[in-house]
This record gives sequence, C-alpha cells and structure tokens, in this order.
Amino acid sequence: MTTEQTDARIVNALNAAAARDSVTDIFFVACGGSYAHMLSNQYIVEREAKKIVGNALNSAEFKARAPQRLGKSSIVLTCSHSGTTPETVEAVKIAREAGALTISLTHELGSPLDRASEFTVSYVHSPLTMSPLHSAAVLARLVFGILKIREGNTKIDTFNKSLEALPALVDNLISKQRAKFSEFAEAYKRATVIYTMASGANYGVAYSYAICILQEMQWIHSAAIHAGEYFHGPFEVTDFDVPFVQLLGVGPSRPMDERALAFAAKHSQRMTVLDAKELGAASFPETVSEFIAPLIFAPVLRAYADKLAEAKGHPLTVRRYMWKMEY
Amino acid sequence: MTTEQTDARIVNALNAAAARDSVTDIFFVACGGSYAHMLSNQYIVEREAKKIVGNALNSAEFKARAPQRLGKSSIVLTCSHSGTTPETVEAVKIAREAGALTISLTHELGSPLDRASEFTVSYVHSPLTMSPLHSAAVLARLVFGILKIREGNTKIDTFNKSLEALPALVDNLISKQRAKFSEFAEAYKRATVIYTMASGANYGVAYSYAICILQEMQWIHSAAIHAGEYFHGPFEVTDFDVPFVQLLGVGPSRPMDERALAFAAKHSQRMTVLDAKELGAASFPETVSEFIAPLIFAPVLRAYADKLAEAKGHPLTVRRYMWKMEY
Repeated sequence: MTTEQTDARIVNALNAAAARDSVTDIFFVACGGSYAHMLSNQYIVEREAKKIVGNALNSAEFKARAPQRLGKSSIVLTCSHSGTTPETVEAVKIAREAGALTISLTHELGSPLDRASEFTVSYVHSPLTMSPLHSAAVLARLVFGILKIREGNTKIDTFNKSLEALPALVDNLISKQRAKFSEFAEAYKRATVIYTMASGANYGVAYSYAICILQEMQWIHSAAIHAGEYFHGPFEVTDFDVPFVQLLGVGPSRPMDERALAFAAKHSQRMTVLDAKELGAASFPETVSEFIAPLIFAPVLRAYADKLAEAKGHPLTVRRYMWKMEY
Repeated sequence: MTTEQTDARIVNALNAAAARDSVTDIFFVACGGSYAHMLSNQYIVEREAKKIVGNALNSAEFKARAPQRLGKSSIVLTCSHSGTTPETVEAVKIAREAGALTISLTHELGSPLDRASEFTVSYVHSPLTMSPLHSAAVLARLVFGILKIREGNTKIDTFNKSLEALPALVDNLISKQRAKFSEFAEAYKRATVIYTMASGANYGVAYSYAICILQEMQWIHSAAIHAGEYFHGPFEVTDFDVPFVQLLGVGPSRPMDERALAFAAKHSQRMTVLDAKELGAASFPETVSEFIAPLIFAPVLRAYADKLAEAKGHPLTVRRYMWKMEY
C-alpha cells in the first residue's frame, strides 16, 4: 500500500460522498480499538460540522439500536483491523440495505469487510509511529474531506499539512523519552489497576489504552475516566497509591484535563502525565491542533506499553481468549 | 412536590417544545449520575425519533465541544440533583444564549439550575423505589412527550401506563430478593474491583453503578463495560476471581448481553446477574419494555449496594472529597 494508492482510495470514497444527493449523518461504527478511533472523529464532526450529525456506536450496538436516522443520507464509516469482525461486517450490510454510503478502513484488503463495503481504504499498521497513512489519520482525513465536500469546511489542507510533520515529531519524541517509558514500567509493573483520564478529542485514546492495552494486553484492571466526569463519582476512588495516566489535550477541552489533574495529583502519588503541549501539539496551527493531539498520544502511549510489557515479562501479543476460542 | 405539580410542570415544558418553530436536536447535558440517566434517553431518541438527533454530553464537555448544531432548533435537557453543579448551570446559560429551549430536572426548586432554566421539573428522590415521579422516569416522560409533539410518536401513553405499575413491582422485588442482596454483600465485601456490564438502554445504569455506587460510595475500583465492546479488549481481564455485575436487558440489545454473559460466566466464578425478564420487564408491552428495564434495574441495584455498604461497614453517605473541599 503506497501513499498514492491510499490517497487514490480516499479520493474515490470522497467522490462518492460528493455524489450523494444529501448527507445528514455520519455513523462511526466499529469495535474496541477501532471504535476508540471513532470517538475522536465524532468529536471532529461535533466541533466542525454545521449540519452533519456524527454518531459513534459499537457495531453490535449499531445493529441493536437500528438508528431511525440511518438511510440514504447517511455515510457509515467502519473500521476493523483484520476486516473479519463479524458484527462490523454485518453493520456494513445493514447500512447498505438502508441505502447508506459505506466506507471502511481495514488493514486487510480482500477481507470480508473490504468485500462488503462499497469503498475501502487500507492503512499502515505500525503502533510506535504516526503518519498520514495510519488508521487514525486516514479516518480523520476522510472526515475532514467529507466536511469540505458537503459543507465547505476549510480545515483539510491545514490538517493534511500537519499530518506530514507527524512522522519525524513522533520518532523524535519516542527516541528522546526512553527514560520516561522505563521509569513508568518499573513503577507500575506490579500495579493491579491503572486508570486513564482524558476528555475532548483525546477521550478515545484514553479509552483505547484502558481496554486494548491495559485490560487486553496486560491484564491490568482499568477504566477510561472522562476528565469532566471525574468529579462526579470516580474521583472518590483516588488515593495515594492509585495510578492514573492523565492526558492533557490542547484546545477547549484542556481546562477539563487540567482541573482533573490538579485534583488527582494532590491525592495520588502515582500520576503519569502526558501533556500534548509538551509533546509538540501546540506547534501546529490552532485550528487543527486539538485534532492532532490524539495522533501524537497514541504512539507515545504505545512506547510506555512496550516498556511495561517488558518489565512485566508479559508481551503485548499474549492473549488468553482472543483469537483462541469461540466467543 | 405532588403528582399534579410535576405533571403540570411537564405539560408546561412540553407546551414550550410544541411552540418552537422547529426541533432538530435534543442535547442531554449533565454530570455523573445525572449524565447516566441521559445515556438511556439518548438511546430512546435513537430508537424512536424519525428525525430528531439525541446527543448526551457531560456538561463540561458540552461547554468545551460547543456543538455547531446547538441553536434555536435545539432542546437542551439538563439535570442536577442539588441544582448547584456549576458546569451544568453554565451549560444552561450557553444553551439559552444560543437560542435553545432549556428544560432542567432538579430535586431543588429555587436552586441555581432552576433559576437559570426556562422550565424546571423537580422529582422524587427515593433510591430504593421507582415511580413516574422519579428523575429517570420524568426524563423519559419528557422525551416521549417531545417525540409525540414534534414527530407524532405514539408510545407515550403506553409508557406512562407502564410507569404506573412500577412502584408495586419494584417494592415487591426488593422485599422478595433480600436473600440475594445479602449473599452479594457477603461475597463481595472484600472485593477491590467489581465491573459492571450492560448495553442498549441499560448501559447508563451500569455506568451509574460503576461510577456513583462502586467508585464514589464504596471506593471499589470499577468500570462499566459495554457488552458489545467486551469481546474487543476488556474480556481478557476476565478470570475466575474477577467480579462482574451483568445486566440482561430486554429487546434488541439482549443478545449482546447474553453473549457477554455466556462468555464471562464460563471464565469468572464471581458473576452477579440481574435479568430484566426475571425482574418483570417482559410483563410490559414490547413496544416500551426495553425502556422500562433501566427503571427496574436502578432501585434493585441500589438494594444490592445498601447491603454491600452494610457488610463493608462503609455507609453510602461517606465521602472523602465530594462536598468536603474545593475541586
């Protein structure tokens, strides 16, 4: 999959979006880590779209919910890494029957998801790096593209230009922060619970870290706490020995993150803070920086996970159930 | 607050909804336990509304996100028990400035939220019972009322009639299941983590239990796992000694819950299952039973919490931070 091939597939999908009589809704439908990407993109739609509605749903929930608004004016964006997630493939079929335009992301061209969808874009999978060809970036490119075509949103060029700077920025961060990753790994290798906390565009990253990295790949209890929700229940579980990974975003959601951090850091001695500003997100134009932040957090957080896995002697590839049995 | 007073306030709010030129969106805006109620009502809108969009957001996230669609065609439904939650009061002000119709629920008439909102409905607070005057019921009555007035949805009468049966049904359940509550309390009084799991209309109840009861009131680590997401990460944390409280709903989301339960029960010996069918939800007309289920789960789950608190010697009223300091 070359840059040209991915770009061409994005153009094809956007041309189809342009050709629709109307587009009122984008449904973002996926499971697990792919669903987490959708949350950041629903956020983009709510921040940027004048009229278009963004709705992120787990694929099985999408099927059960059978949203009344699903129809010919809908675009259904799905994602499955293997392209074999049955409920996501089924969601595409339901969407097509309802007359929606279906655009899917998958790593595996030729997979059931690819075959079921009208348009497919594949992506680069390399968790310790970031580029315009990574799934989270491709998805956001599609969203900004749709918003340009359907509503005249002008951010796509700035966003795309910003993406070009990410590979070098992320490589540099990961090579320079090795000491931090090792320190985290040593400090938390015996932790039985680690919470993640974020808001805005970054909540999806915190969710992904909680369910895919900590619960799934490290068997550590976790939950993604929304920084705005923290003070209305979860904060009571904070104590000197309770670990939190706190993401500080940029843009309008940052005050929520800062408020949560100020409190949590006063009562827990086990805070790990990733600040998007310090990680370089603030170097991008203010019109898009809040949407760039999750693309920086994801690979950096993965580097923390790699070291944690090493310190625990529990490789990120180990599973006890996933892919090993019927479920 | 009599039945007649609450009914009159609902009628006033619905008359205002009827008088709007157009209603395209209902924003459900609140924090914590009040936000949890909103999730069940966003579900009602997505299942039932032909055109109207439902969007549930934490109040601080609503402010930060500043949804582009917010405007004169929006209804903003908020809820705060004390009526003093600053971010919810602020959300109402933002909504009014944008020209939205604001309807709030609070237990405290005369509170800042009441004063900030155009329409306010107060409610009965009695966590071990359920009635048409409880907050979750009042909210759903408003939603079905709006859907009737704006789109001709016909379920309000069946829904209201169903609500009338709830007080006796719930009282009966709670008096008959005392042994179950005690058994749960003894089994989990030393648990350091208890997950909750649900989907569809009941996900909000699972969320509320995780963040308000387990984390906030019992200082037990928790997370609400969406049953459809369980297989895409969280299930790897399942083990013989990991406790789950599983809600089985009725209606189209039930198969998701059943699938999650089938797997979890095979690998954990610490499952607590609340089945809406067994709790009487299936005795209601099929057109509304899935929306009634969360109203049954909430008080029954509270009875489990009461016994747990007793067995732990940790009253549900104890807090270390909430209301005790600045945050």
